[in-house]
Parts: sequence; structure tokens; C-alpha cells
Amino acid sequence: MNVVDEVGFVNGSGLAAVGGGRHGRHGCCDRPRLEAGTKGFGRSMTVRAPRLGVRMSMGDELIYIMVNGMPGGMALETAEAVARRHTLVPVGLTGADVGVTSMEIEGNSVELVRPDERDQALKEVKEKYPGVVAIDFTHPTAVNGNVELYAKYGIDSIIGTTGGDEEAMREAVMRSSGVYSVIAPNMGKQIVAFQAMMKSISTEFPGCLSGYTMNVVESHQSTKADTSGTAKAVINSFNDMGVDFPVDHVEKVRTEAEQLDRMGVPMKYLKGHAYHTYTLTSPDGTVTLEFKHNVRGRLVYAEGTVDAAEFLVEKRALGGDQQIFNMIDILRSGKMQ
Amino acid sequence: MNVVDEVGFVNGSGLAAVGGGRHGRHGCCDRPRLEAGTKGFGRSMTVRAPRLGVRMSMGDELIYIMVNGMPGGMALETAEAVARRHTLVPVGLTGADVGVTSMEIEGNSVELVRPDERDQALKEVKEKYPGVVAIDFTHPTAVNGNVELYAKYGIDSIIGTTGGDEEAMREAVMRSSGVYSVIAPNMGKQIVAFQAMMKSISTEFPGCLSGYTMNVVESHQSTKADTSGTAKAVINSFNDMGVDFPVDHVEKVRTEAEQLDRMGVPMKYLKGHAYHTYTLTSPDGTVTLEFKHNVRGRLVYAEGTVDAAEFLVEKRALGGDQQIFNMIDILRSGKMQ
Repeated sequence: MNVVDEVGFVNGSGLAAVGGGRHGRHGCCDRPRLEAGTKGFGRSMTVRAPRLGVRMSMGDELIYIMVNGMPGGMALETAEAVARRHTLVPVGLTGADVGVTSMEIEGNSVELVRPDERDQALKEVKEKYPGVVAIDFTHPTAVNGNVELYAKYGIDSIIGTTGGDEEAMREAVMRSSGVYSVIAPNMGKQIVAFQAMMKSISTEFPGCLSGYTMNVVESHQSTKADTSGTAKAVINSFNDMGVDFPVDHVEKVRTEAEQLDRMGVPMKYLKGHAYHTYTLTSPDGTVTLEFKHNVRGRLVYAEGTVDAAEFLVEKRALGGDQQIFNMIDILRSGKMQ
Repeated sequence: MNVVDEVGFVNGSGLAAVGGGRHGRHGCCDRPRLEAGTKGFGRSMTVRAPRLGVRMSMGDELIYIMVNGMPGGMALETAEAVARRHTLVPVGLTGADVGVTSMEIEGNSVELVRPDERDQALKEVKEKYPGVVAIDFTHPTAVNGNVELYAKYGIDSIIGTTGGDEEAMREAVMRSSGVYSVIAPNMGKQIVAFQAMMKSISTEFPGCLSGYTMNVVESHQSTKADTSGTAKAVINSFNDMGVDFPVDHVEKVRTEAEQLDRMGVPMKYLKGHAYHTYTLTSPDGTVTLEFKHNVRGRLVYAEGTVDAAEFLVEKRALGGDQQIFNMIDILRSGKMQ
């Protein structure tokens, strides 16, 4: 199988380069553009050429990426990252009760498709953009059905939606004929790296913090009721290092006043941030260790998701047997934006 | 070779248990003591029994430990830790220009021996305490000669003295007939663990912090002129993770006013502390990672050194081929106090 042929790069997909200022309002009219007729969706599509200075995988060729889950925040932020770095497919899946029918993302129009049309839409997307990668930030109730369809039509996917049945997703991918997928609850590479590092030290140096006391404070937008999943995983590792700390002792900061004054969260990120501080003290009080990972907004997750798509395209080109990956695999590969 | 026989445990060394209140001034007259005549050094020696609740290696048996380098601060702190956890040999090496001739350590008298008598002293110590472990916190100009003599008399050693010729030390140990040694510039287990963790993440996830900017602040007692060696090693790892940061950009805090106000060093530790903060920011400014390791005083290093001695006694009992170890080996073994 010549897998490279299945990867739909702009330059190999029958698209014609056009100069132009049609999208001059986006301040990028000095760059060449590529245009392709995508009649199947009843509109023309304009694809932006890569920006100078942006590193791209596979010899700077663009990847077609479909983003599903708009107008959800994570899907929107990811679609913008895709538009900046690759080619956004002009169709995306959305929920049954979503009133919006299309989105304008960095100058790209994206038609939103409801669940009853998703089978047909995915079939057409695969036909038109053979190497397409689907990114899924949808809903726990939708994601398993989506993954079944990605598998059915041979679409590689990045699954960032949490709360679905992950085991069923894995089975669907494995049953498919050679579909690849990254399934990851956290697309923030540096945060995942921190988590992996803690896990690894707990395995390598068991009990290295034996007798230490710990204090954990995390702050998230006030709508988040439960304790941070990242905090839970990290605390688990500290437990393995000998620190006696139950997860329910985590201090959850959820009021905006405290977030601003005590945690130092900037005003514009009150609605979306993830701040964590772990402070450890030795039994005799003479050693303090402190670890912080503070994320503002969703950009780091969006960029990590696009890194995952690039990683998957490379994996497909290499054609290995492993079909399912996580963010640790991406970190190990050194694939970073 | 029955190596266990070479380990000089209190209970197997012909010492007689005596009850007593002779050292009642130390507030421990309710505990039994062990007494042995050590005529070779012209005085009697009193050995404290283990305190209840203190974990000890090798079935809670005491190890004879010689501490060299008193009255230096690191040697003194370590001698106290030895006296609390094991049996302090009543002789220790000191420098040619040291006026003090003996030290009182937690109720144990220790005679200090100058360089011209060290050969004879080490010979006698080995004869009287066959399984003795020597701890060396002496001087860069003395340590290599000491290591030669430890090797000559078959004394296992923990070398915490920095600034000597480490390669020559290693050769001396390897040339000896089966002497074991831990050679480690930093005996602070948790700090060594942090350093190892950073090294390991830089190897496993190359470039995971690519493009991040970093800020490093360290504070040490005002007498420390150079940049922290730990900071240098950690920065090296961050460099491998893709962070462009030259070591000479480290901010060194050396004034007491700043240490108190800005770094929060307690007054009593102004003369001995090691505070480090590494702050990393993503290219887009939305992610901040911060790592701190703050050590006050020398206790953590002293306890780590005694852990190293326990580790070495276990290694001798097992009789493996590896003769030289570092703190990472001790961390891996899970040997912790």
C-alpha cells in the first residue's frame, strides 16, 4: 500500500494556485492562495497558503484537517490553529440542537453538519480529501458514533473529546482497515510532559519523597465543579513517591475574586484557565519543593492537537502496525510546534 | 568471602551492654548503652543504642561510621546524623591547621587526627571496627590522599568532598581489593532526584519546551561566589528540552536583605541555604511552568549521606562487582530515611 498517496496534500490534490486579494480583509493579500472547487458542499473554498516561517511537517506540505465540535470553544480554537498552520476542511460535524449552520474561521467558511447528515458528510469529505485527518472535540454522547464513522470511511482522527467510552473507541479503530488515531484527554503537550515526568520519577525513585507533606491548590473557571484530572494524576505519582495526600485535600479555587488576587489569573482568562501548584515540605521542614503549571486559555491545547494531526500523517506515511497513539507518543517523537 | 563478617555491627563486635546514666546531661539516660574499651585512642568510648522508632538498615543493626572533616560544617552536621542513627567512630580526620583536637557530638567524644597521623589512625580504625564506613567532607587538597588510604586499608567510603580529582578517586577505589565507595557531589536525595528527573525528561521528550523563555533565580549564602552547580545541571537539561538559556543569565541573589525580603529565606538560614526557582513561559505567553527547590541548612545533605552509608553496607553484604556508586543508585534502591 502506498500510504503516501492517501495523504491529501494541497499540492497533490488538483488545486490551482491563484494570486489574489479576495481576502484582503485578513491582511494577507500579498501571499499566493490556492483555490479548489468543492461543489459537493455548494460553495467554493479558499485555501490559504502556508505562512512564511511556520514549520510544517512532511516537507512543509499542508494537511487537510476537519474540525468537529464547533461552535464549542475547544473546536473553535483548534480550527483557528488549523487555519493558521494547515488546510481547514470546509465542513464540520456539530450537535443536533445547534442553531448555527456555518462558521467563518480565519477567512475560511465551514459548514456545520448535524448528526443526521454526518454519515454522508464524512463519506464525501473522505472522497474529496483522501488524506484528511478529523479532529473531534464534540460531546461524550456523540464521540463514539463519530469514531465508528471515521473508521468506516478510513479517516484518521485525533480524539480530544472526553467522557465517551474510550475502550469502544479503541475497538472501533482496531477493527477498521488500518485507520490511525490519537486518543488523548489532554492535548497540552507541556502539561502532559510534566505529568509523564512525575509518573516516571515515581516509578524510578520509589519513596523519594517519603514523609513529605504536600499542599495542592488548583484554580479553574467557576463552571468547573470537579477536581482537575491533571491534579489527580500528578497526586497519584506523588503518592507513589511516598507522599501521603488524599485527592480530596486539593484546594479548589473557583471564585473570581480569589483567582484574580491570590492566583494572579489575568482578567481575560477567568473563563478559561488551569492553574496548579504543588508544594512539598520535608519532614524536618528544611526542604521545600514547588511545582506549578499554569495554562491560560485554550491555545496550548489547540496547537498540541494540530501537532497530533501532523504526527499522525507522518505515522501513516511510515505505515507502522500501531494504530492508536497518545500525547506521550507525540512528545517522544519530538513533534512540536 | 563472607562479607557480612566484615560489617562491624554493634551486636557482633564484642561490645558489652551497660545500663547507665553517665551521659544523663544529654537527656537520654533512660536508654541502655553499649560500651567498648578503645584503648588505642587513649579514652573510653560510649555508644548510644538505637532510638526507638528510627528505621535502620540490615535488620536494625548499627553501622560504625567514621566522619572526616570536622569541625567543618558539613562534617559536623553529618556526625550528628550518624550519632542519631548509627555508631559514630571516636576518631576523625581533620586538617593540618585545625587547632581543635576533639569534638563532642551528641554525647560522643571524637578525637581529631591531623594528616601526619592519618595513615596510622585509619589502620587502627579498620582493625577495631572491621565494617567501618568512612564519610569524607574534608578538603579538595586532602580528599585524594584520604581515598588512597581508605583503599589501602579496605575501608568503604562516602565521598562528599568536592573539588578533588574524581577520576583519581575512582581509580584508587578500582585498584583496591574490593572496596566500595559512593562518590557524590550532592547528597541531597530529593534535589538529586529533581536533577535526574529533568535530565530524564530532556532525553525522553527532546524539544518539549521548544521556544519557551526561561528565568532562573538562585540564592545562596553570601560567601558563595560561583553559580549553583545544581542550577547549571538543571539548565543543561532545559537546554536539551529546547530552551535557549545561557548559564550566565542566572540571577544570583547574594545580599541578605534580598534573601530575607524577596526570597523568603528565614534569618537563621542566611549563612546556609540553597534556593532555586526556574520559571518558563511559552512563546505565546499562555503557559507558565515553575519549579522550585529550596533547601535550608545542611540537614538534608547529612541525612542523605547516612543513607548512602547504609546503602553501601547493603551493597557489601550482597558482594556485587560494582564498586562505585552515586546518589542516583541510592535513589533507585529506594533507600530513604
